Amino acid sequence: MENNILENLKGPYELKELDDRELEQLCAEIREKLIETVSKTGGHLASNLGVVELTVALHRVFNTPGDSIVWDVGHQCYTHKMLTGRLKDMEKIRTRGGMAGFPKRSESIYDSFNAGHSSTSISAAYGIAAAKSILNDNTRTIAVIGDGALTGGLAYEGLNNAGRYKKNFIVVLNDNEMSISQNVGAIARYLMGIRIKPSYLNTKSKVERVLWKIPLIGKPMRNLLLASKRKIKKLVYKKVTLFEQLGMAYYGPVDGHDMKQLENALNAAKRMRRPVLVHVLTKKGKGYQYAEDNPKSFHGISSFDIKTGSTKKCSTGFSDIFGEKLCEMAEKDKRICAITAAMTLGTGLSGFSEKYRERFFDVGIAEEHAITFASGMATVGAIPVFAVYSTFLQRSYDQLIHDAAMQKLHIVLAIDRAGIVGEDGETHQGVFDVAFLNTVPNTTVYCPSYFEELKIMLEQAAYKCGGIAAVRYPRGSQWYKPDDFVCTGEAYDVYGSGDVLTVTYGRLFSNVCAAKERLAKKGINLAVLKLNRVKPIDTAAVELACGYKKVFFFEEGILNGSVAQLFEYQLVKNGFTGDYIVKTAEEGIIPQA
Amino acid sequence: MENNILENLKGPYELKELDDRELEQLCAEIREKLIETVSKTGGHLASNLGVVELTVALHRVFNTPGDSIVWDVGHQCYTHKMLTGRLKDMEKIRTRGGMAGFPKRSESIYDSFNAGHSSTSISAAYGIAAAKSILNDNTRTIAVIGDGALTGGLAYEGLNNAGRYKKNFIVVLNDNEMSISQNVGAIARYLMGIRIKPSYLNTKSKVERVLWKIPLIGKPMRNLLLASKRKIKKLVYKKVTLFEQLGMAYYGPVDGHDMKQLENALNAAKRMRRPVLVHVLTKKGKGYQYAEDNPKSFHGISSFDIKTGSTKKCSTGFSDIFGEKLCEMAEKDKRICAITAAMTLGTGLSGFSEKYRERFFDVGIAEEHAITFASGMATVGAIPVFAVYSTFLQRSYDQLIHDAAMQKLHIVLAIDRAGIVGEDGETHQGVFDVAFLNTVPNTTVYCPSYFEELKIMLEQAAYKCGGIAAVRYPRGSQWYKPDDFVCTGEAYDVYGSGDVLTVTYGRLFSNVCAAKERLAKKGINLAVLKLNRVKPIDTAAVELACGYKKVFFFEEGILNGSVAQLFEYQLVKNGFTGDYIVKTAEEGIIPQA
Repeated sequence: MENNILENLKGPYELKELDDRELEQLCAEIREKLIETVSKTGGHLASNLGVVELTVALHRVFNTPGDSIVWDVGHQCYTHKMLTGRLKDMEKIRTRGGMAGFPKRSESIYDSFNAGHSSTSISAAYGIAAAKSILNDNTRTIAVIGDGALTGGLAYEGLNNAGRYKKNFIVVLNDNEMSISQNVGAIARYLMGIRIKPSYLNTKSKVERVLWKIPLIGKPMRNLLLASKRKIKKLVYKKVTLFEQLGMAYYGPVDGHDMKQLENALNAAKRMRRPVLVHVLTKKGKGYQYAEDNPKSFHGISSFDIKTGSTKKCSTGFSDIFGEKLCEMAEKDKRICAITAAMTLGTGLSGFSEKYRERFFDVGIAEEHAITFASGMATVGAIPVFAVYSTFLQRSYDQLIHDAAMQKLHIVLAIDRAGIVGEDGETHQGVFDVAFLNTVPNTTVYCPSYFEELKIMLEQAAYKCGGIAAVRYPRGSQWYKPDDFVCTGEAYDVYGSGDVLTVTYGRLFSNVCAAKERLAKKGINLAVLKLNRVKPIDTAAVELACGYKKVFFFEEGILNGSVAQLFEYQLVKNGFTGDYIVKTAEEGIIPQA
Repeated sequence: MENNILENLKGPYELKELDDRELEQLCAEIREKLIETVSKTGGHLASNLGVVELTVALHRVFNTPGDSIVWDVGHQCYTHKMLTGRLKDMEKIRTRGGMAGFPKRSESIYDSFNAGHSSTSISAAYGIAAAKSILNDNTRTIAVIGDGALTGGLAYEGLNNAGRYKKNFIVVLNDNEMSISQNVGAIARYLMGIRIKPSYLNTKSKVERVLWKIPLIGKPMRNLLLASKRKIKKLVYKKVTLFEQLGMAYYGPVDGHDMKQLENALNAAKRMRRPVLVHVLTKKGKGYQYAEDNPKSFHGISSFDIKTGSTKKCSTGFSDIFGEKLCEMAEKDKRICAITAAMTLGTGLSGFSEKYRERFFDVGIAEEHAITFASGMATVGAIPVFAVYSTFLQRSYDQLIHDAAMQKLHIVLAIDRAGIVGEDGETHQGVFDVAFLNTVPNTTVYCPSYFEELKIMLEQAAYKCGGIAAVRYPRGSQWYKPDDFVCTGEAYDVYGSGDVLTVTYGRLFSNVCAAKERLAKKGINLAVLKLNRVKPIDTAAVELACGYKKVFFFEEGILNGSVAQLFEYQLVKNGFTGDYIVKTAEEGIIPQA
């Protein structure tokens, strides 16, 4: 019998026919498959192990694909994918041409909405529900959102809107203490409150305890009062939870690894003619000891050894260098503060967060707040440094313009994961930041190719710039550096000489140098103009390029609004009439690699 | 004595010396000045009349400019400006070179943070407070935010972060039922609850009523219980309000027109060593009957007659035409839905909101949600049309890319107030949308110059496009149209002929035509290429332009990422070697006009 329920499953509808024992076996099989797969391909593990029962329960209680399940962020959808005809595709998850690590509508009718960025599920699901209602479609819609994602303002906007809906709409809060471990604000503390001491039960007993102590009431009174507890409960606990205050009915907390409890709660929610929040407690990494013990490390992970739980040691990356350098700066200058949006580890700020606790701010998944908060700090003379993945900085576009740039406030952006990000896939590509920062006034953008440059430029961003000063660097480690290239930290460097000029910036300089060496062997010489600061573009660099008949521009970002286009615009203004050939990232959506 | 307290005030510190009678007189003088000024210059009236006492109380309880007051949105800061040395500047508020209608740091040290867009105050103020703490500055920081602004996710992110602060931090919730009148979701309903029936008092009496009814308890028991009400209150009402659940102490509701109550609450808040929310109830338009009766009309208003309250009737604008056309489309097609972010009136959707109530969604000041919600709707076949001011669409940049564009979902954007907006000032200029939409994949952008074109293009956006289809049009009415120009709705139109080509789009076509006529009298002939669709740029239009030696491009937007630059890039690729002269909006920040 081993390992054949999952493999023989024809579709999620068959889940409804399984008995308790079979369900238990199925969940075990799923966990085995999850661990086996992710140990080879890398990916999200802890979050997926946590929602095995929840996913099975959802597919048993609801009728997918008619009923729509919207997964927030989407890194917890592996079980969902396995149950909906994509078990075989798990082998190639997160690889070029393989299955995505996130929900994807083009992949399956069971995926209702794409994700990757956080906190979108309630808004999207409510949109689906509202449109279904208008189009007379009576199927259900369910959003599944983690407690971490609940720190994002978009989730609140979604709740606030869905809270007034007059029909069935279900939000499953998958509370795995993601936000707690990162200590990101009041909502985390609030959830901890209802998690540890379920409010219905706890507050009740407290009230009883007080009544007990009132003179002349004592024991008999207490018993009488308990008899009418239902009535009191109704009043005292009316609208107790924050979610109820936002218009949702509240069910919970429910043990997220108890299939019966889950199904009961979901079935009850299904019957409501109004929005309901089902609060489910899950354990990250459930069923794999190493992941349970160390859920952070097993959140997003590269391949690992199943038996020992040990992963390959990553080589030093730009994030590490950034973290070290920022500590060094903070040591010397009390004004330096660090801000992260729930990415302490990913952005290399773990050290900073321990050493300079009072100057470290993990704001939750709240990139908008991060910029406005930093702007506030800057008004009184602090030097806030917001470390953020390129793709998530998209969320702060208005705050960059309205709160930072318009007031000419000096804030520093450390833009991590700039450029192509590989297997994280299309929602995480860092290919827009240069283009949108080009439209933001009072902004300087530095692009180090090497660790050494990152250090120099971070200093420049903090101390030599006004306004918004961004330093953008890629995922992972530095690439090839020719022995005779010297990092200067000037606005641009010229490397080598030849009839043809190649212009580039960031890590692509490595590729250009490699090409240059290969061409040199064939007797073709390339001059390389490496832009260290891409905004504003240095006038002298443009003039220099004007002296060439043929200019190639290589860029790891989208074409529209690119440095390549702005450079050309200035070239032509300077009277350039030679050939100008541009190679940028593909326009549109760049798939996982 | 009349009218001399305000005029003789040397600074806000002098407010502390005034007695009750003088304060009353001062408030009356302020109201008179507000009504008189706005009746001439236009601006925000109702919101300013509502916060007269609150502003005076803030300046009496706190010591500005050391203590920082951060005004959310900022349209309620007129009294603050008058009390802080800018009474005389009121005459020229919102005019070119005159005082801004919003707080502005470059204008006064009493303005702690610029605003214009909504929901930024808590994040900014918390940034100020946190930085002050790090820099050993013990002055206070106060955010003043309206209930409308509380519907924005950024405000929630701010609350969530500030809620964990360990020092004094004050949020004044100026609850003037702004969100209620627009019925924008659960938070509005929630505030209505604590507003109408103050929770502390009301729930208490309910509990008492139940206890009364319990057999064997009756009257004597009730009296005993009342004796220990403090204890019960502490338990039963612990963390009653949503704000307390988010970590704030809660004071309120307070009558916002009762100076004593206000000062007591603010003084109490000042003493807390933790974050506090002071819930203040104010009346929009307070003290001017026409504004009290019709606060919506007197929110943002042009000049009016003080005696009759009547304003100039505005001529029909693009917003009106949009609203009418959308109703027409909705009548024929049940899939058409309208979404607004708290701008029903401003975007011309009042009619739609009444006629097609179930297909109309006012999401509150939540532009991020609006796009993700619309994307959700699009997945099941609805045609959502989000009507939004250009400047506020900046908030949705990531949602446009991540939720709409990446899934190639078909949503329609009706971008109002595109281009220069005049006296609304720098925070409201609609000069970024074209540039940032140029970076969003799978997007089409139409730019009508005339009402007739708006109608044609809205149809095209809804029915002839996939992906994101945007129609952008300016504030106000259509401009001059030459008699012999015919609106075609094609991707571009060519008007007139000559040696020099001018390229433009949107309402600037009118200016170009006027210039063309003047030049014609001098014997100079201009050809005009009017782009009706600026993204993607039509290849044939570029080829046509290639035939000219001299091309002028006029654009009402920023230079970087502009259509002018993309057009040039394509021209050069097509072998163009002539002169190319570009005139766009100023780079950077464009002041009020």
